[in-house]
Amino acid sequence: GRASAAARRCVGLIEGLMAEGRATATLSSLLTSGRSATKTAVAPLTRRTTPCGATRPRGTSSRPRFAPTRPVLGHRHLSTTTTSSSASASSMSETHKTSTHFCDACGSETSVLVPEGDNRPRRVCQNCGKVHYVNPKVVVGCLVEHTCEETGARQVLLCRRAIDPCRGLWTLPAGFQECGESTSEGAARETREEANAEVSIAAPYAHLDIPAISQTYVIFRGTFKHASASRSGSSLHSPGQETLETKLFDLEKVPHEEIAFSSVRVVLGKYAEDVRRGRYSFHHGVIEKEAGVAASSPRFKLAQYTGLPTEHKL
Amino acid sequence: GRASAAARRCVGLIEGLMAEGRATATLSSLLTSGRSATKTAVAPLTRRTTPCGATRPRGTSSRPRFAPTRPVLGHRHLSTTTTSSSASASSMSETHKTSTHFCDACGSETSVLVPEGDNRPRRVCQNCGKVHYVNPKVVVGCLVEHTCEETGARQVLLCRRAIDPCRGLWTLPAGFQECGESTSEGAARETREEANAEVSIAAPYAHLDIPAISQTYVIFRGTFKHASASRSGSSLHSPGQETLETKLFDLEKVPHEEIAFSSVRVVLGKYAEDVRRGRYSFHHGVIEKEAGVAASSPRFKLAQYTGLPTEHKL
Repeated sequence: GRASAAARRCVGLIEGLMAEGRATATLSSLLTSGRSATKTAVAPLTRRTTPCGATRPRGTSSRPRFAPTRPVLGHRHLSTTTTSSSASASSMSETHKTSTHFCDACGSETSVLVPEGDNRPRRVCQNCGKVHYVNPKVVVGCLVEHTCEETGARQVLLCRRAIDPCRGLWTLPAGFQECGESTSEGAARETREEANAEVSIAAPYAHLDIPAISQTYVIFRGTFKHASASRSGSSLHSPGQETLETKLFDLEKVPHEEIAFSSVRVVLGKYAEDVRRGRYSFHHGVIEKEAGVAASSPRFKLAQYTGLPTEHKL
Repeated sequence: GRASAAARRCVGLIEGLMAEGRATATLSSLLTSGRSATKTAVAPLTRRTTPCGATRPRGTSSRPRFAPTRPVLGHRHLSTTTTSSSASASSMSETHKTSTHFCDACGSETSVLVPEGDNRPRRVCQNCGKVHYVNPKVVVGCLVEHTCEETGARQVLLCRRAIDPCRGLWTLPAGFQECGESTSEGAARETREEANAEVSIAAPYAHLDIPAISQTYVIFRGTFKHASASRSGSSLHSPGQETLETKLFDLEKVPHEEIAFSSVRVVLGKYAEDVRRGRYSFHHGVIEKEAGVAASSPRFKLAQYTGLPTEHKL
């Protein structure tokens, strides 16, 4: 029922994180324990106030295990009763998706509790009381538009990935937003890093949520900064460290069978529609996918879609 | 120069986090050490591979301090040389803005290193090598539109804050996006929590980056779900736990002198313009503010602004 759905989602979240390149050895172990949770429902998650043997790295001193039987620092301890409610069940997986078994401020062990004044379980330090919030991440990227000098065809810049996940598949230059930068600065930075291309950001183009992996994509349109100085588009870009190949594709020649990531599929599809219609929209929607579906799989659904047709012509 | 600018920014980031209600005792201590860093430039940041005395909570066992003199697990250790480069200086503050002094996976101490294949310093575990990424957070909120049954005036729902920061000031219902939810689901949830109002989300309305505090605001337009069932707007909303008062304001009566948060000021200003013009835009921009400026201060600049006029009429 709900509990095993939550456990399945937990696995999906972790796989999503791994798929997005943030995998660590620890996450890998967590994945294993998450999988066993799909069989035994909620209890294993609730018990995991200390990391299981599999997640304890070599060289870590063994600490006395501490299982609080009453609220710590006024926090409400998560019982199986609260776990069985819908809200708790759905957010259990979130609390466990990262391996915050120890407090990053003081190094003590954490427990899963509902902090006072909060309404969902969090990892809370047993020693200093610090609440370890986990929030969605923003992926920023750029749809670089170009007009072929020879044919006049509308082209877009794609990067063939040199790293997993989706090694060998084509994607828009994109990556995690860093602290201290705006989304558009992040989009330009990722384009510089992955395609050695300097771009001017034109406008926001798409905003896509992927709740299953707690990510939000913010994609901008942009153009090469120095396009006019060059006769050939190919001198405007080259593979960065994480890229095997960069290429400007005519819109009708985009390799739809070899695209990495559902978000990129959606953006390229909407962009082709916009170009056909001769008018940009701003695209917003939710990408729904099931746990375990590969990042490159076309098995997803675009839900709650809103296209805001803008007054900007192409 | 650059180093002290980075240190100042560090203080700003921490103050921002504290202002946004995520403050902990540990952050408070960090703020103190961050302030001292503004005087002594880069060196103190580089040295802080172990928490200073002030940040060690009571009851934490003292551990042997470990200052690696060469790369750990293939990571590039951050030297003062790399710190003096622009990229490193600007991202130093990001690494230090949260107190990830201990690995959340194994509890060992962390160091500030540039991981292999990365280009900026991160907190890296000295024991298991886990890289502790810190990324911007998304704040989701809702501009609830209503038409007064008696006067026909266009109204918006505001909440008077019951908690710091900005206690007593008016804001849109908004808060941090949670894992596993879309931005629009988050906006509806925050409206439910802060104003006991059930809303239908209409469309995305504004996307505002605040790099100084590593936040991105995503604001949707929405309407009360059960507005037609009621003659009086006041029965559609009531204060939630974090709210002193909820109120529908005629647009020309919005209390501009008592608004919490720069993002809310921008959204309410753009909305008033849109209503005057009779046409919605989608608003995107970057809010630039200096370190130490209060969350309610009108001392900020809206930069890189793009208004995408949409085909949607009001």
